[in-house]
Amino acid sequence: MPVGTAGTVKAVPQDVLETLGAEIILGNTYHLYLRPGHELIRRMGGLHKFISWPRAMLTDSGGFQVFSLSALRKVTDEGVRFRSHLDGSSHFFTPEHSMDVQIALGADIAMAFDECTEYPADRNRAQESLRLTMAWARRSLDHFKAHREEVPWYGQPDRVPQVPILEPGNDAANFSSSGRTQSLFGIVQGGTYKDLRRESAERLVEMDFDGYAIGGLSVGEPREMTQEMIAEVLPLLPAGKPRYLMGVGYPDEIEQYARMGVDMMDCVLPTRAARHGLLFTSEGRLNIKARRYAEDETPPDPACCCMVCRRYSRAYLRHLMQCGEALSGTLNTIHNLAYYLGVMQRVRQSLHPEGDPVLANF
Amino acid sequence: MPVGTAGTVKAVPQDVLETLGAEIILGNTYHLYLRPGHELIRRMGGLHKFISWPRAMLTDSGGFQVFSLSALRKVTDEGVRFRSHLDGSSHFFTPEHSMDVQIALGADIAMAFDECTEYPADRNRAQESLRLTMAWARRSLDHFKAHREEVPWYGQPDRVPQVPILEPGNDAANFSSSGRTQSLFGIVQGGTYKDLRRESAERLVEMDFDGYAIGGLSVGEPREMTQEMIAEVLPLLPAGKPRYLMGVGYPDEIEQYARMGVDMMDCVLPTRAARHGLLFTSEGRLNIKARRYAEDETPPDPACCCMVCRRYSRAYLRHLMQCGEALSGTLNTIHNLAYYLGVMQRVRQSLHPEGDPVLANF
Repeated sequence: MPVGTAGTVKAVPQDVLETLGAEIILGNTYHLYLRPGHELIRRMGGLHKFISWPRAMLTDSGGFQVFSLSALRKVTDEGVRFRSHLDGSSHFFTPEHSMDVQIALGADIAMAFDECTEYPADRNRAQESLRLTMAWARRSLDHFKAHREEVPWYGQPDRVPQVPILEPGNDAANFSSSGRTQSLFGIVQGGTYKDLRRESAERLVEMDFDGYAIGGLSVGEPREMTQEMIAEVLPLLPAGKPRYLMGVGYPDEIEQYARMGVDMMDCVLPTRAARHGLLFTSEGRLNIKARRYAEDETPPDPACCCMVCRRYSRAYLRHLMQCGEALSGTLNTIHNLAYYLGVMQRVRQSLHPEGDPVLANF
Repeated sequence: MPVGTAGTVKAVPQDVLETLGAEIILGNTYHLYLRPGHELIRRMGGLHKFISWPRAMLTDSGGFQVFSLSALRKVTDEGVRFRSHLDGSSHFFTPEHSMDVQIALGADIAMAFDECTEYPADRNRAQESLRLTMAWARRSLDHFKAHREEVPWYGQPDRVPQVPILEPGNDAANFSSSGRTQSLFGIVQGGTYKDLRRESAERLVEMDFDGYAIGGLSVGEPREMTQEMIAEVLPLLPAGKPRYLMGVGYPDEIEQYARMGVDMMDCVLPTRAARHGLLFTSEGRLNIKARRYAEDETPPDPACCCMVCRRYSRAYLRHLMQCGEALSGTLNTIHNLAYYLGVMQRVRQSLHPEGDPVLANF
């Protein structure tokens, strides 16, 4: 999932995302809550309509950004008080408030409010953090179930997600009693402790979410440890529901985790790296700022057939970057997204050579 | 002509410019000379190939930017010594050097090196400035004629401008003895003095350029004075060659001047204003940053059918601007260019209801 922080995948128009084959994008609850505000987006009919994106969307819970971006955080069992990174104003997020905000935004998938355990965290810290996340998961789910019919597009026939996000047999999950609405995913935490991860997964599955995410990984731990945690958790999550690994990763990682059984991933890497001139290619990483590309007439990735590689040379992309031109971010991002989406397409193809069983149902 | 200063119409990909119907764009010699350098662009096959723009291009002479952007200018009859606004390095531009740079860039149309007379300028100053510009025009033309066959794409069959820029009967002008090459336009100066303007036009026509520009207007003088100068000069320029009014203007101006007989105009206004949130619409100017658009679901211009107005609301464009998102500049610019190109299309249609006689020849 390309990341569209403030209601835009930075520097890329929505029609280009469609052409690239992006079937779902992510919006950040923390950013959208601060600006333009979830109530404004609700009045505008929800995030899909506000940003003109008819395909699927997912919003995070706001928790990760509260912990990574805001100042003067104070965490209690009740929730988190924090100051906005934009203007220093004071805000209070609880699981219930996160659900209200995400229902107002109206993405197809909302996420339970959690605390992303930092790395390293000792066992006591990880255990206490997990206790909070599990209590918040329960409260998130209860509040979500009571209010999911308040989504701005509730009952509107045209807001049927155009992309299947559920496995066959589970397609009733995001129907409420009287119409299609949002889905809610729980988030497995537990730091780097296998038993805490198992406990977290089992308790969430008991609560019966529409899908499950693995959070708190790729936060600085060695990659072997990331893999161990994923391998520990995946078998405990029901295969009939989506399994979402949050915040990863490099192209080789997303391929590896997809082959392990992960269904969804998101990461700012392809978009953020692009804006800093780092391109992912079939020949490896390419720093387009490097002097050696100044007169290189070959496309960024000779094996890529994206709209950037079909038209522009490395020399031109380097020139745009050197001049600080806005087009640099746009073209670099388009290529990196094409590369990432291409990786996932090839993985899907190799996992299901006769066609994707989910997509085939639609 | 949309302005593409450093080899990019800021924030807009080339394929979008094509879709918008931009038939010719402008590149700035001063900027491209400094970065990435005209010799690099020559080695890359010229500007069209370097930026992947197969349609027509025009480069200015560099003079206007030398006078408006650089520091510590010293003007002599020989040329202008100046310091780069980027790194303070010292450079010397002469008419001959401007031609060499523009031939290396290889736009379809190059411009004679001139001094853009400031406003206000007393008669002595305007006369002295014109003396310099006329001497430089002669030297530009002589050097250009001697070297025009050094354009990087000389004799290549695929670098035939895709857009006719010449009137019928004049289509031999940009063929040299053995193949298609660049055209060179002279620039009428003379400040706000009618007799100097007339003298300038007559002397340039005697020199026999491929086309003629009117420079040094829209630099602060009242609009009535601009019109007077244009009205004075236009009848002196041969109707069979393109007449180009430099650096204008607002939508009502470009319509007015086109009806007076101007064939070509360029201006940074639609693109620069867009990046600052000023949109041109059929209902007048619209400052998209204004609070009153925060929840406005209507498109920027309800009468416009550009790709931005078909998809996005004022509320979304305002949000992007508030957040400083790169997509803001892209979408605002696309709309403004669509509006400007639409104005010109309507003017052409009303001047030639049975179809454009130039386009009909191709």
